[in-house]
Amino acid sequence: MNSYDAIVIGYGPCGVSCAVYLKRYGHNVCLVGKDMGALSKAHSIENYYGIKSISGADLFNEGINQAKGLNIPVIDDEIVSIEYGDNGYIIKGTNNIFSAKVVMLALGVSKNKFNLASKYEGIGVSYCATCDGFFFRKKKTAIIGSGEYMKHELEVLENIIPDLTIFTNGNELSFKPNDNIKIVKEKIISFNGDEKLESITTESNTYEIEGCFIANGSAGGFSFAKHLGFMLDGNYIVVDKDMKTNIPGIYAGGDCIGGLLQVSKAVSDGAIAAQSISKYLKK
Amino acid sequence: MNSYDAIVIGYGPCGVSCAVYLKRYGHNVCLVGKDMGALSKAHSIENYYGIKSISGADLFNEGINQAKGLNIPVIDDEIVSIEYGDNGYIIKGTNNIFSAKVVMLALGVSKNKFNLASKYEGIGVSYCATCDGFFFRKKKTAIIGSGEYMKHELEVLENIIPDLTIFTNGNELSFKPNDNIKIVKEKIISFNGDEKLESITTESNTYEIEGCFIANGSAGGFSFAKHLGFMLDGNYIVVDKDMKTNIPGIYAGGDCIGGLLQVSKAVSDGAIAAQSISKYLKK
Repeated sequence: MNSYDAIVIGYGPCGVSCAVYLKRYGHNVCLVGKDMGALSKAHSIENYYGIKSISGADLFNEGINQAKGLNIPVIDDEIVSIEYGDNGYIIKGTNNIFSAKVVMLALGVSKNKFNLASKYEGIGVSYCATCDGFFFRKKKTAIIGSGEYMKHELEVLENIIPDLTIFTNGNELSFKPNDNIKIVKEKIISFNGDEKLESITTESNTYEIEGCFIANGSAGGFSFAKHLGFMLDGNYIVVDKDMKTNIPGIYAGGDCIGGLLQVSKAVSDGAIAAQSISKYLKK
Repeated sequence: MNSYDAIVIGYGPCGVSCAVYLKRYGHNVCLVGKDMGALSKAHSIENYYGIKSISGADLFNEGINQAKGLNIPVIDDEIVSIEYGDNGYIIKGTNNIFSAKVVMLALGVSKNKFNLASKYEGIGVSYCATCDGFFFRKKKTAIIGSGEYMKHELEVLENIIPDLTIFTNGNELSFKPNDNIKIVKEKIISFNGDEKLESITTESNTYEIEGCFIANGSAGGFSFAKHLGFMLDGNYIVVDKDMKTNIPGIYAGGDCIGGLLQVSKAVSDGAIAAQSISKYLKK
């Protein structure tokens, strides 16, 4: 297990900016990310000060090289959980385990927000298998997702809930689940129910479902953040002006905290967060 | 007189970022500035996302070219006043007069803040000749500054106050004042007085002074902002999260609003301001 002063999750503009500042403040920092997030969709960025025109991919690569040029470890991995540890936090990826005194969340925004599901949060819809799996142990339960994060949540639920259906929402599964797990690969059209979740409708069917775990976690993957009890505003993580979340030692910035979803604002969030993280580490 | 939707005062990172966004939002915007401000002191910037290493001067020039590349008029001038006009604001420079529905202040920070003087604000020290000149008409009065902005303030005071002394604070005067004006070119060491301003001490003398107008306006030149009744926090302009000042149609960002005095934060402020200015202009 690698130990750091700070681990920055997400290596887009916010994450790299934060890591660069932290490194230059003299802290032992590590960058972990899994893809270039929203930058991958930007063919040409022409509104970022100091650079007339650049593709999202090129800007992303410039950022990664900038971090590497300062000897910041840049690790490709998908983080699936953050837990309290003896000396800060234990951060688990699919291939690595890290410990860090401080966690910076620079997660970007999830492509699949499941706003459809949001009205059933707490009345059928959950974002945390560990927290809520037990409540649905005798119910027909869905888990939504197709990748590594879903696999991680599924492993928790399998031990608790016998009747499980994976909804991939139109995506291909990245792994083969156990045979007793049902799989629905169609896109989800609606979540239904009067006072609580009762069913999920896909393109050609409606399934009786009373419990549903959102574990799509694509692009942003903020879902796991709910495990620790973050204050959220819709799908955005709530921070104060110093980029502190409500949990000591955990900071957030960039698109995952909302506001202007632009490179410039993400970069600034990262710099501001680094300043407050540095103060926190020096205490 | 040139009319614009928005005039951005200051063409450093915040100003250019704001103007670029406004232009791309389809607004008729103009950039006015007088120097490269704090960037001129940065030999090498290595913590701005996407650019490994660049001098402050090179980054400044990149920004100016970026604005020009979008056909934004970039005008070299020192703004000396902002006044309410029929259709927004009248903005006077030493060589130009502009009108604009919206003013964005991206002024940077003043090199000479005269923190020494701040405890006498309202009890001898003023930032506005037009507002406060009359109160000192029978007193020994100082005006601090050496450049165009001071000249502008002096023209107001000359008509009101017979006993005037210019304190250049060690700088050379950029113009020749009338003969009845006294001139002190030494650096100021302290402002003195128990309950109100009584004297100013320079390197080799103490001068009896009861009224003092701060018009140094170097680099930032936020001083004139006080004319309009901005809410200030110390020397910083107070804005809300959308970069609005307390005066409708006037916005501010970058170093002149305080917080992290870094390029990244200034650029973000400019982008956020542009978004709210655009909303305001569309109403």
